[in-house]
Amino acid sequence: MHGVAALLGNQSQLEFIKSGTSGEVERMRLWSISDGKLFLTEAFNVIMEEILHKGTDSEEKVCEWKDPDQLRALLDLDLREHGESHKQLLQRVRDVARYSVKTCHPRFFNQLFAGVDYHALTGRLLTETLNTSQYTYEVAPVFVLMEEEVLCKLRSLVGWSEGDGIFCPGGSMSNMYAMNVARYWAFPQVKTQGLWATPRMAIFTSQQGHYSMKKAAAFLGIGTDNVFIVQVDESGSMRPEDLEAKIVQAKSQDAVPFFVNATAGTTVQGAFDPLNRIADISERNGMWMHVDAAWGGSVLFSKKHKHLVAGIERANSVTWNPHKMLLAGLQCSVVLFRDTTNLLMHCHSAKATYLFQQDKFYDTSLDTGDKSIQCGRKVDCLKLWLMWKAIGTHGLSERVEKAFALARYLVEEMEKRDNFKLGPFVNVCFWFIPPSLRGKENSADYQESLSKVAPVIKERMMKRGTMMVGYQPMDGHVNFFRMVVVSPQLTTKDMDFFLDEIEDLGKDL
Amino acid sequence: MHGVAALLGNQSQLEFIKSGTSGEVERMRLWSISDGKLFLTEAFNVIMEEILHKGTDSEEKVCEWKDPDQLRALLDLDLREHGESHKQLLQRVRDVARYSVKTCHPRFFNQLFAGVDYHALTGRLLTETLNTSQYTYEVAPVFVLMEEEVLCKLRSLVGWSEGDGIFCPGGSMSNMYAMNVARYWAFPQVKTQGLWATPRMAIFTSQQGHYSMKKAAAFLGIGTDNVFIVQVDESGSMRPEDLEAKIVQAKSQDAVPFFVNATAGTTVQGAFDPLNRIADISERNGMWMHVDAAWGGSVLFSKKHKHLVAGIERANSVTWNPHKMLLAGLQCSVVLFRDTTNLLMHCHSAKATYLFQQDKFYDTSLDTGDKSIQCGRKVDCLKLWLMWKAIGTHGLSERVEKAFALARYLVEEMEKRDNFKLGPFVNVCFWFIPPSLRGKENSADYQESLSKVAPVIKERMMKRGTMMVGYQPMDGHVNFFRMVVVSPQLTTKDMDFFLDEIEDLGKDL
Repeated sequence: MHGVAALLGNQSQLEFIKSGTSGEVERMRLWSISDGKLFLTEAFNVIMEEILHKGTDSEEKVCEWKDPDQLRALLDLDLREHGESHKQLLQRVRDVARYSVKTCHPRFFNQLFAGVDYHALTGRLLTETLNTSQYTYEVAPVFVLMEEEVLCKLRSLVGWSEGDGIFCPGGSMSNMYAMNVARYWAFPQVKTQGLWATPRMAIFTSQQGHYSMKKAAAFLGIGTDNVFIVQVDESGSMRPEDLEAKIVQAKSQDAVPFFVNATAGTTVQGAFDPLNRIADISERNGMWMHVDAAWGGSVLFSKKHKHLVAGIERANSVTWNPHKMLLAGLQCSVVLFRDTTNLLMHCHSAKATYLFQQDKFYDTSLDTGDKSIQCGRKVDCLKLWLMWKAIGTHGLSERVEKAFALARYLVEEMEKRDNFKLGPFVNVCFWFIPPSLRGKENSADYQESLSKVAPVIKERMMKRGTMMVGYQPMDGHVNFFRMVVVSPQLTTKDMDFFLDEIEDLGKDL
Repeated sequence: MHGVAALLGNQSQLEFIKSGTSGEVERMRLWSISDGKLFLTEAFNVIMEEILHKGTDSEEKVCEWKDPDQLRALLDLDLREHGESHKQLLQRVRDVARYSVKTCHPRFFNQLFAGVDYHALTGRLLTETLNTSQYTYEVAPVFVLMEEEVLCKLRSLVGWSEGDGIFCPGGSMSNMYAMNVARYWAFPQVKTQGLWATPRMAIFTSQQGHYSMKKAAAFLGIGTDNVFIVQVDESGSMRPEDLEAKIVQAKSQDAVPFFVNATAGTTVQGAFDPLNRIADISERNGMWMHVDAAWGGSVLFSKKHKHLVAGIERANSVTWNPHKMLLAGLQCSVVLFRDTTNLLMHCHSAKATYLFQQDKFYDTSLDTGDKSIQCGRKVDCLKLWLMWKAIGTHGLSERVEKAFALARYLVEEMEKRDNFKLGPFVNVCFWFIPPSLRGKENSADYQESLSKVAPVIKERMMKRGTMMVGYQPMDGHVNFFRMVVVSPQLTTKDMDFFLDEIEDLGKDL
C-alpha cells in the first residue's frame, strides 16, 4: 500500500463521507452552509443589539462587573464532548457580550483604544470573513496593494517621499522590528552569526518610554541591562543632555550605542520627546533613531498639533498605532522606515521556497510576506483604509483635534473644581482629592493616603459600572488617574458626567 | 496657563464641539451612531452575499484574477482629503470582496487555512466588535478566563494535567516564544545581560522543519548559522541518528545544544518526526524539546490518528495552530508549556506599573498580559471556544478524520489515473504528468520539463478562477502540487472535480 494510505489506517474511512450512518444528521448540522449562515446572521443581530446599541448607550453600564469565580460559573466555560443547540449558542454569544467590557461605551476612558468607528469595524468584519494571510499577491491581491498604498500615505505624513514599512501585531512588535532592523544595519553579521560575533550594544530610551523597549532588548538577546534609561524633565520629556551623558557612560563600558528610542506621546503622561535635538545627537554618534509614536503619531494629521513631532522626518524608523487615537480597531500598528535599500527584507527574509516561489507568473516583488518575522500575517490595513476613505484625511484630522479640544475642556473644568489636582502632563492625568485630605497637603501621611484613593474609587466605579478610567503611580507620583478622550462620540456632557461621577464615588473618602 | 492647556494652543477649540458651524453636517455624519450602525448592517449584507453566498458556491470563481496594474485601477486605492458617500463606500466593500481570493470556497486548496467555520466566524465578529486587549482581567474578564480554559483543554489533549501557555499571533511567533523560553531556562542571565554573557548556543531542526526556526534564531540574536539542519528520511521525517550526529558536531564547535525542534506535520509533506526517539535524545543531552505541531497538532483530537504524535507529552513546549486543520480562522495559534514554575512569565515580564498595578481590588494573577512580548494582544481564544462549544470535541475529531478520509480518497483516485504521480509524503503531494512527458521518465530533460508544468497550470488555473492549489520544489524534487483538503464542506465530488480540472488545464502540455 502507498505510504499515504498506509498512514491513514487500514479501514476505509470513506463510508464516513459517502454513506448515511446514524451520525449523519449531526454531521449535516455541522457542515451545512445554510445553517451556518443563519446562525451568523442571528448572532450578528445579537452583536448589534448587545454591543453596538446597548454598549454605546451612556445610560447602560460600561461593564457588568463579576468576580472571577462568579463569572466562571455564569459563562460555563467547560468544553465538552458534544456540541450545543443553535439556541444555546446564541445565548453564549449574548453572555460573552454582556459580561465583556464595552470599550465602545462613551464612558470607557480606560485605554488608548477607547471608542468605535463603524467604518473601521466594517473593514474588520470584512477582513475576518475573507480570512486570508497578508503574505503573497496570490492569496491577498487586494491587501498587498492596499498595504502598499496605506504605508505610502502614512510615510508621506511623516515627511518621507519613499521608504518602507509593514503592519505588525501591535506597537511592541513594531518597536521590536525597528530595533532588529537597526541592529542588522549596524552589524549585518548578526543575522547569521548571532550576537557572539558583535560587540556589546547599547540602547537608549527615556524613563517614560514604553516598556516594550525592555521586552524587545530581552527578546532580541541584547539584555535589559543594555537598555540605558535617560532622564525626563517634569513634563515627562527626554532630557537631551542626559542622553549624551548616557552615551558616554555606555561607551565607557565598551558598549556600542546603536539605537535611540524617542517617544512621541508617552503612554501615561503623553509627553513628546524633543525629536530634533535627539536627531542631532543620533547623527553625531552614528546611531539609528527610532520614534515610538504609537500614541502620538496621529498628531501628524493635524496642522494645529503636528508641531509636537517636529523633526520626526529625521528618524530612521517610526512606530505608529492607528488603533489608538484614530480608532482603527485592535490591532492596527505600523513600523515605517526611511531606508530605501530594502533593509527590512534583507534583515528578515528566509526565502521559503514553498511560499515565495520565484517562477510565479506575476511580479514576485509583490510577495511582501518575507519582510515579516511572521509567516501567516493578519490583514490589518483594510480597516484603516476603509475608515480613511469614509471620512478622508480631513475627518481624521478633525478627530485628532477634537480629542485635544476635549482634553482642554477637561483641564479647564478641573481647574474650576477644588477636588482635582492636575499632574504636570500632556495627557490629562490628575488626582482626586477627597474631603478628608483637602487642605492637608503638608501632613506626613498625605501622599500615602492619597495613593489609596484611586484604587478605592476604581473598585467602586467598576462595581457601579458607570465608567472606566485607569490609574497608576509613576516616578515618585502616587496613584493618579489618566483620562483617555479619543472617542468621536464624546461630548462635553460626557466630560461633565465624568467629573461629577468621580466626585460622587469619592465623596466619603 | 497650565502646561496641558498651553500645549493645546491658545485659540479655544471648544467652539468646534459646542457650536453649530458650517462643517456641522459633515461631522454629524462622521460621528452619528445610527448612521454608523446602518452602514455596518448594510455592509454585513454585502459581506454575506459576496463572500459567504457566492464565495462558497462552487459554480462561482475562487478568485477574479487581475494583474496588479489592472487591480490598482479598479480599486482606486488613493486616500484623499475628503470622505465618500455611504453608497460609494458600500461599493468599496463589494469591490474588496469581489477581487479578493475566496479562501472559504470549496475549491481553494492552496493554503492550510482553507475553508470556513460559521461558529468560529461568529466568534471572530464578536471579538472585533468587543475590541479589547487580552492583557488584564479588568478590560477582558471573559477572555482571560476563556483563554485559561481553552489552553487547559488543549494541554490535556497533549497529555498534560498542568502547565502554561499563551495565544500568539501565528505559529512563527509561537515557535519564537518557545525558543526564547527555552533559552531563558538554559541561561537565565540572558534576559538581563544578553547573549554576550552566554556560550554560543545550538538549535536543531530538520531540513523540512518550518522556516520560522531560522527567522526565530535570527531575531533572537542567536543567528541562522547556529541552526543545525538535521536530515530527513524519504517521507520527510527527521532521522534521529543524524540529530545525534549534529549534536556531536555542534559540541565540537563549542556550541551548547539547548533546543531541538521536532515537527508534527511538516508544512509541505505533512511528515511527522519520531517524537519519542527525539525525546530520548533531548533528555540524554539536557536539551529543551519543542514540537512544532502547527499543522499536525489537531490529530490529537482523533483517536484514530493521534498515534502520529506519540510522545508529544514528553516535549517541553508545543506550537499548535487551530486556524489550520480545525478552521478557527486566522489567527489562532497557541504555544503550550509543560513547565509549572511560571517560566513564561519570568522570561517575558517587565512589570509595567501603568498596566499591571499590584493594588487592584481583584486577584492580579489574572492579569496574564505580562506573559506576552506584546502589550496590546488580540483576543484569539473566543473563535476556538465558540466553535468547540458548537460541535464539541467529537465534532472536531470528525473534522480531522474527514480531512484524512478525503486525502485517502484522493490518493486512491490518483492511483487510478496515469496522469498523476504521487510524492512519497503524508500530505497529498503530486506531479501532474502532461501528455508530452508520459513515458519519458528516462529522458535527460524530463525533470527540467516537469518542473515547468506546475507553474503553467497554476497560471491557467488562477486566470480561469476555478480553483487554487499551491506548488513548490523541495529537496531535489522539482515543482509538485500540494493539496489541502481540510474544509468540512468538501465532498468526494470536489475531489473528482479537482482531478478532472488539473487534467483539463494541462491537456496540451
